Amino acid sequence: MKRKIYLKRMDLYDGLKEYLEKLGKSGFFEDEIERIHTIEALGRITGLPVYANRNVPHYTSAAMDGIALKSSSSFGASESSPKILEEGKDFIFVNTGDPIPKDYDSVLMIEKVRIIDDDRVMIFEPVFPTNDLRPIGEDVTAGEMIVTRYHKIEHYDIPLFLAAGVFELDVLKKIRAVVIPTGDEIVDPREARLSGRIPETNSSMVRAFLKEMNVESDVTKVVPDIPEEIERSINSATKKYDIIFTIAGSSAGSKDFTYRVLEKNGEIVVHGMNIKPGKPVILAIVNGKPVIGLPGFPVSLDVVLQKVVKPVILRKYKTYEKITEKKIAISSIRMRSSISEEEYIRGVLANVENRTVFSPLKRGAANLISLTRHDSVLTVEKGKVVVDEGEEIEVEYSGGDLEKKILVVGSHDLLIDVLADLLKLQDHEIVLSSSSVGSMGGIIAISKGFAHMAGTHLFDPDRGEYNISYIEKFMKDYVLVNMSYRIQGLMVRKGNPKKIKGLSDLTRDDINFVNRQKASGTRVLLDYLLDKENIDKSKINGYDVEEISHMNVAVKVKEGLADVGMGIESAARVMDLDFIPIVKERYDLLINKNFAKTPMFEKILEVLKSEEFKREAKKIGGYDLSDSGKVIRG
Amino acid sequence: MKRKIYLKRMDLYDGLKEYLEKLGKSGFFEDEIERIHTIEALGRITGLPVYANRNVPHYTSAAMDGIALKSSSSFGASESSPKILEEGKDFIFVNTGDPIPKDYDSVLMIEKVRIIDDDRVMIFEPVFPTNDLRPIGEDVTAGEMIVTRYHKIEHYDIPLFLAAGVFELDVLKKIRAVVIPTGDEIVDPREARLSGRIPETNSSMVRAFLKEMNVESDVTKVVPDIPEEIERSINSATKKYDIIFTIAGSSAGSKDFTYRVLEKNGEIVVHGMNIKPGKPVILAIVNGKPVIGLPGFPVSLDVVLQKVVKPVILRKYKTYEKITEKKIAISSIRMRSSISEEEYIRGVLANVENRTVFSPLKRGAANLISLTRHDSVLTVEKGKVVVDEGEEIEVEYSGGDLEKKILVVGSHDLLIDVLADLLKLQDHEIVLSSSSVGSMGGIIAISKGFAHMAGTHLFDPDRGEYNISYIEKFMKDYVLVNMSYRIQGLMVRKGNPKKIKGLSDLTRDDINFVNRQKASGTRVLLDYLLDKENIDKSKINGYDVEEISHMNVAVKVKEGLADVGMGIESAARVMDLDFIPIVKERYDLLINKNFAKTPMFEKILEVLKSEEFKREAKKIGGYDLSDSGKVIRG
Repeated sequence: MKRKIYLKRMDLYDGLKEYLEKLGKSGFFEDEIERIHTIEALGRITGLPVYANRNVPHYTSAAMDGIALKSSSSFGASESSPKILEEGKDFIFVNTGDPIPKDYDSVLMIEKVRIIDDDRVMIFEPVFPTNDLRPIGEDVTAGEMIVTRYHKIEHYDIPLFLAAGVFELDVLKKIRAVVIPTGDEIVDPREARLSGRIPETNSSMVRAFLKEMNVESDVTKVVPDIPEEIERSINSATKKYDIIFTIAGSSAGSKDFTYRVLEKNGEIVVHGMNIKPGKPVILAIVNGKPVIGLPGFPVSLDVVLQKVVKPVILRKYKTYEKITEKKIAISSIRMRSSISEEEYIRGVLANVENRTVFSPLKRGAANLISLTRHDSVLTVEKGKVVVDEGEEIEVEYSGGDLEKKILVVGSHDLLIDVLADLLKLQDHEIVLSSSSVGSMGGIIAISKGFAHMAGTHLFDPDRGEYNISYIEKFMKDYVLVNMSYRIQGLMVRKGNPKKIKGLSDLTRDDINFVNRQKASGTRVLLDYLLDKENIDKSKINGYDVEEISHMNVAVKVKEGLADVGMGIESAARVMDLDFIPIVKERYDLLINKNFAKTPMFEKILEVLKSEEFKREAKKIGGYDLSDSGKVIRG
Repeated sequence: MKRKIYLKRMDLYDGLKEYLEKLGKSGFFEDEIERIHTIEALGRITGLPVYANRNVPHYTSAAMDGIALKSSSSFGASESSPKILEEGKDFIFVNTGDPIPKDYDSVLMIEKVRIIDDDRVMIFEPVFPTNDLRPIGEDVTAGEMIVTRYHKIEHYDIPLFLAAGVFELDVLKKIRAVVIPTGDEIVDPREARLSGRIPETNSSMVRAFLKEMNVESDVTKVVPDIPEEIERSINSATKKYDIIFTIAGSSAGSKDFTYRVLEKNGEIVVHGMNIKPGKPVILAIVNGKPVIGLPGFPVSLDVVLQKVVKPVILRKYKTYEKITEKKIAISSIRMRSSISEEEYIRGVLANVENRTVFSPLKRGAANLISLTRHDSVLTVEKGKVVVDEGEEIEVEYSGGDLEKKILVVGSHDLLIDVLADLLKLQDHEIVLSSSSVGSMGGIIAISKGFAHMAGTHLFDPDRGEYNISYIEKFMKDYVLVNMSYRIQGLMVRKGNPKKIKGLSDLTRDDINFVNRQKASGTRVLLDYLLDKENIDKSKINGYDVEEISHMNVAVKVKEGLADVGMGIESAARVMDLDFIPIVKERYDLLINKNFAKTPMFEKILEVLKSEEFKREAKKIGGYDLSDSGKVIRG
């Protein structure tokens, strides 16, 4: 009979930290990937970024029940002088989701239409192009990253993947665990009627716990207190399983052989933790695999499962425990809500400037991607019609560690998605959310303290430089970092069927152009170039039709809904379009000054300068990364 | 083309309430039970109360590594005059969990033992009977209710059931659902390349959501927009499935036939809810089964799944969503904690007198039942050695609606468990937790506002009445309700081998008695009776050996660890012992005065007066329920 001696006794935090570090060095956390059917992927974690194979939606559709019409045929309509439209000529009836033929460019909801007879309707207001249309690729365009690696697949992600033509997914393999009960006195619970026979019930707790954690497990026969037998079963288990649990034998009684076996065959990192109950835990590494000696008392066992085993599994799965909690935040924009309905608005939270900011995502009921992107929900009660910018609101948040959420706004670029994905390799808990509001919108958001970073590529012809003059209209204290140089130009269909050579072709009668929204970098550049070449914007067909991203412009060209659009080479390449280069531009990231002091920002710089980032950019093409990660100001 | 018209449009709360009520009347919420292996029961809900088939633990064991000894042989030991004990005669070495032979009655931990040679040890302090023993039935005794019906089975419940010899469980059947996608334009996502073909992806979201809710589901082929076909598939689905979901066809476009089919074949309770997104939902009942028309837009769909479908499923499963949240509470007792360890203390929360009270459960690492019973965990940081009574603490709570938690303390009775179970039939969210602290302990807890109710059966010989004189020493404002009359007497082994006839036999040399703890009703009664009969307590072998419940006394007699104990007839019956009746006593429930004003208390009175309660009491035996539920004071 010896006294219990815990060698390598540690506090929970320190012990776990050391164990995770050593497991990392042993290679335990390296990703193992398997391909499974998307339909069976609930709860699994992506092992690689997932790209769309198709546009979602894959055709332009009606967002409302009503009529599809040519917007031009509605111009001039009013209550006092309504317009009469003819079916088949001016309009067709559409249900929500119906495709919109190319002849029509907008939808008017049925509530605003008066039906005259079988062939004619009357309308009382003008309709703008793209009104109540759901454009191709509104959720995601073919070639775009839908989610980064290490994304846990929720029930609402599955339909998005399927709609994007992603029928199989590369996910992290399920962890396979084994539970080895030890001890002469341990017997099957059905046979544990005699005094001194301890029913082997602990493995049932461990296995149920593992099942909840999405870990597959087996249990071995009870191994008697014979060191050779314990040794044999642990060694053989390390060959077949990812993680090995022994039960009992981890207190320090006279028959606790597990400790000595582990010491002989591998490394014991922790023996005994300063937690109660749960003290007699052993954290070891044998043949590169974690071997955890669990305590035999059930309450100790549960504490160790919750406090020690769970973090190991979460790290291996590169995920975090999803907990829904209420948070007080401020709204980053003014929002209107229906007076007669309770409304649920999905958004993303970020801690900026010591405040928690809620940025709503696109609110359409059809916006599948808003489900995948959201980490929080704002409930606007019935009767409340406005949420003001800066208004304090309560939201339900379920996005993990809020300090590891990065919000990027402004002009979007495919490399932002690459950055988001590669940050996961630095720290799997980092979530970088991005939303496309144009360069100018991004600068304003940063100036208000509503986001951490903003992509911007605004050319100032007066000063012959990018971004700085625009930024300094709003703030003096900021950090500016280069992400890349990019080639701006014209995107046309493969083979350039309309023989477009340059901007001067845009005014041709046979050319349909698609534009970007005002205050986007590309629009500012286009307008500057058109002015410089004295091209009359009013003569460009489609100059008023605006899309909010390079990819959405590219999709319109690809699908033949427009002949040409201005945008960056990488978007053209991803969409397999031809490209007419015009100018090289600088794309920078404007950084909130306090965020620039955080370790998160250090990680971002690290990624921007990394070989991996350059490699991914090269794969896409159209980028010059010679200054990537260079701090321009601040 | 018609305008959308939502008939029976309602707010979320009202609509759901009416739907749940009508589903209740249709019989949808009636329990369907199946028997499954305990080992596979994770996440399932008990359909009936679960009773122990065995004592847990099933033998008296060492709670520490050390020596098992006769406590009497240690009396007089001290630092200055240690005692020397001989192995095999005075003591044996034991490991934690080892059985304690009948000759020994206590354990001394190895750290307090000095080993002299192979046969002898030295000890420096006296040891009291039952010291560091884990008594038979400490967790639960054979015949006791382990959990009520509608208990969701967690990973730590499974080992308790197995240890209690419960290898199969009666659980609520899994709900079987079917998803019926409708619409001419809906096609398999692999084939949805053409404009106007909508990929059928919604069913994948619904099925993944249902899987997370523990609901099994099938999906049918897409049903075209032909009323007869929709009608046929819904009607046939109501025969095979518990709940039917249709998708699309629930907006109100020109081809929405589902509404008319449901109206014709059943009752539409809600059509259109004032929620956004999610408005176009239909809640109907066809052939007694819920048929829910889900909106076709994915974000609307998710809102309806979360806000409408989830509550219907939770109600059918008689459970609630388990959310872990931090709560500020006060501690109901003073607790010591280890200076060198972080300690996790399990307990139950209750809202009493506008405060949230944390009542710790028994803290032993071996106490499996403390896992099953707990709804909250207090973490006491390393270095903090005392949590004071009334001290404000933060705990992690995961027990559902705190307003529906009832805490009963004081003297325990098997009927308290019956009450807890039958309350579930009134409202499945009610959780009645009980802990056994004796009658006096219960009165004090109520006087401090630390519990809602306390069982008490304290006889006052001076006034010839029960409870009131004891209670009024502590409070004037209270409510007292009778639960039952019970027969107190002596419990002896079957056949009464020692021929015990009455209290006067207790002083016999060949009789080993087991007592109850001081200030328990039974102890007060015993001492009164012994004094009345002039029996010398010091002559009763085992008078100092205390157990804290009738059932634990019964177990000691049953197992031959004692020959006789005082207790109630029902405990003797459940344990299959012979019983020598002595006196009929009154067992009342003392109620916190504010709790007595709540609807929860009304439900308790209802149960106490119910035929079902009487029936269950009769099954156990030994009760007189003629005044059950009668308000004695207040």
